[in-house]
Amino acid sequence: MRISSEHALLAKLLARLPRPSPAVLVGPGDDAAVVAASRNERLVITTDAVVEGVHFSRASSTPADIGHRALAVNLSDLAAMAATPRWALVSLVLPASLHETEAEELVDGLAALATRYGVSVIGGNITRTDGPLVVDVTAGGEVGSRKWLTRSGARAGDEIYVSGTIGGAAAGLEMLQSRAAASECMTRHKRPEPRVRLGVAVGRARAATAAMDLSDGLADALEQVATASGVGLVVDAALVPVDVLAREWWTARGVDAVSAALAGGDDYELLFAVPRKCAAAMRTVTRRLAHTPLTKIGEFTKDPRERVVLRAGKKDALPKGFEHFANR
Amino acid sequence: MRISSEHALLAKLLARLPRPSPAVLVGPGDDAAVVAASRNERLVITTDAVVEGVHFSRASSTPADIGHRALAVNLSDLAAMAATPRWALVSLVLPASLHETEAEELVDGLAALATRYGVSVIGGNITRTDGPLVVDVTAGGEVGSRKWLTRSGARAGDEIYVSGTIGGAAAGLEMLQSRAAASECMTRHKRPEPRVRLGVAVGRARAATAAMDLSDGLADALEQVATASGVGLVVDAALVPVDVLAREWWTARGVDAVSAALAGGDDYELLFAVPRKCAAAMRTVTRRLAHTPLTKIGEFTKDPRERVVLRAGKKDALPKGFEHFANR
Repeated sequence: MRISSEHALLAKLLARLPRPSPAVLVGPGDDAAVVAASRNERLVITTDAVVEGVHFSRASSTPADIGHRALAVNLSDLAAMAATPRWALVSLVLPASLHETEAEELVDGLAALATRYGVSVIGGNITRTDGPLVVDVTAGGEVGSRKWLTRSGARAGDEIYVSGTIGGAAAGLEMLQSRAAASECMTRHKRPEPRVRLGVAVGRARAATAAMDLSDGLADALEQVATASGVGLVVDAALVPVDVLAREWWTARGVDAVSAALAGGDDYELLFAVPRKCAAAMRTVTRRLAHTPLTKIGEFTKDPRERVVLRAGKKDALPKGFEHFANR
Repeated sequence: MRISSEHALLAKLLARLPRPSPAVLVGPGDDAAVVAASRNERLVITTDAVVEGVHFSRASSTPADIGHRALAVNLSDLAAMAATPRWALVSLVLPASLHETEAEELVDGLAALATRYGVSVIGGNITRTDGPLVVDVTAGGEVGSRKWLTRSGARAGDEIYVSGTIGGAAAGLEMLQSRAAASECMTRHKRPEPRVRLGVAVGRARAATAAMDLSDGLADALEQVATASGVGLVVDAALVPVDVLAREWWTARGVDAVSAALAGGDDYELLFAVPRKCAAAMRTVTRRLAHTPLTKIGEFTKDPRERVVLRAGKKDALPKGFEHFANR
């Protein structure tokens, strides 16, 4: 990148961000940001980096896609805790090959998503690198005391719900890599949409005992929640809401669509453990958020070693989840 | 790096961290951490990344040095806001060439500094990379309402104080690059010590109107504070507390030590703007923190364009600060 100075670039990028909320007492530009914490709320904080060559390719994702994604994956983590997002900090590690206007477009993509959810970008930093582009975002949100949802609260008998459709992002990545014709699945991969309103609504309704996002796939999330909660699980393959276009893509290639959807990552849907008595509360949430489909796919069970996928009545093992390290 | 899986490495690294404080309601391992915010305090948050080849070299810094540094630079930012550090999140972007035991040593170096200042590591993530090692830390702290110090509060007539000695880290980097004999300056560069207690004490005593850390050098900090505050400045070169070993190093090479110390970065000392009537309060702070020298080097002035370094009575310009981008 050819830039006059770090300070000058910083000033340009800051000018592209939405105005911080009044709770932000000191915003970007000082040694740190100062935020007013409210009384009866708890602060929820997460950090997640996206790295070129691992999470995205600059050949297929625009700078705005990358900025969107870097914030989206963090908002998804807050949603999975039932927290309302409030602020974010952005750490940019910029290669020399990235033009200054691309850095600006990246910030625009992030700022557009921040604006949609009322998130204040309260700080960050820029570093150059000889290596790949890294965008590391830390996001903070608020949740009422004792209203957050962890991975470890599921109990035997709780039903397993997932939002939206599964497998679109994984199929989209395969399509991009094989230079297939444009598909909505590619957009699912490049521009994940965090389930912010759903996570917050389920937490407020106290309708779930546990939640997790599907960043590393449905199989991984099922495994993580079951392990953290000390329960087993049985999922019905026929109930898994596999994305229609992803199913077509895999079926045409002789790949079992449910297995591929379970193992694939990057969907950023939410998984919930829902006690039977909360089924009505979940229906109320679903009705209020008309565009968020929720599907019951199975239940958590008593035996903590049980990991079963039912296929036409037969018991099958849960596939391994998506792991960035394992997928080189 | 050869590792069985991201989850397994994460578990190993988490085991090396100090136990979180009781204010941490949900720690590492979930989608996000949950922290109880206190009533009359404000939350102060900062993020800063250290990148291999830019901020450190793996040839001269140990993994523990790198972990220490990644947290130290963030604690320094909190200190410059007068905030007491409380928590940190750590984002590791790990190259294949970094062995798993090195990742563990890196976390040990970070954990040792966290323990010293009672900082809870409440989350983070691991990503692999084909590029250089990146450690990005986000740190949060607390400060009483209206007790934080920004860069923008300095007024004409306020005296300029700096902590410790200046130039040691910059000379240390030169020594490392020219493979000189071991020197304390090298340690200054590799293991910066954040002025946590000093920043908090000055804030509590309400003894300063502005503060900033010297991460990008004294000249840069002077420029930033003057610009943000809309004031000028006059500094007396004879009063700048140049590190003794750094002065020797530069003098032996025919370099003006004061100019080099002003321009050099990475000292992580603190700069304060102190009204004359607060001089007694500053002396009290200094007495209580016996090992923190504080030196008055000049004052902020009325003309916002004035940037003067007095040398033997003559007016000289303020050198440009250290910029990572400019120093390739």
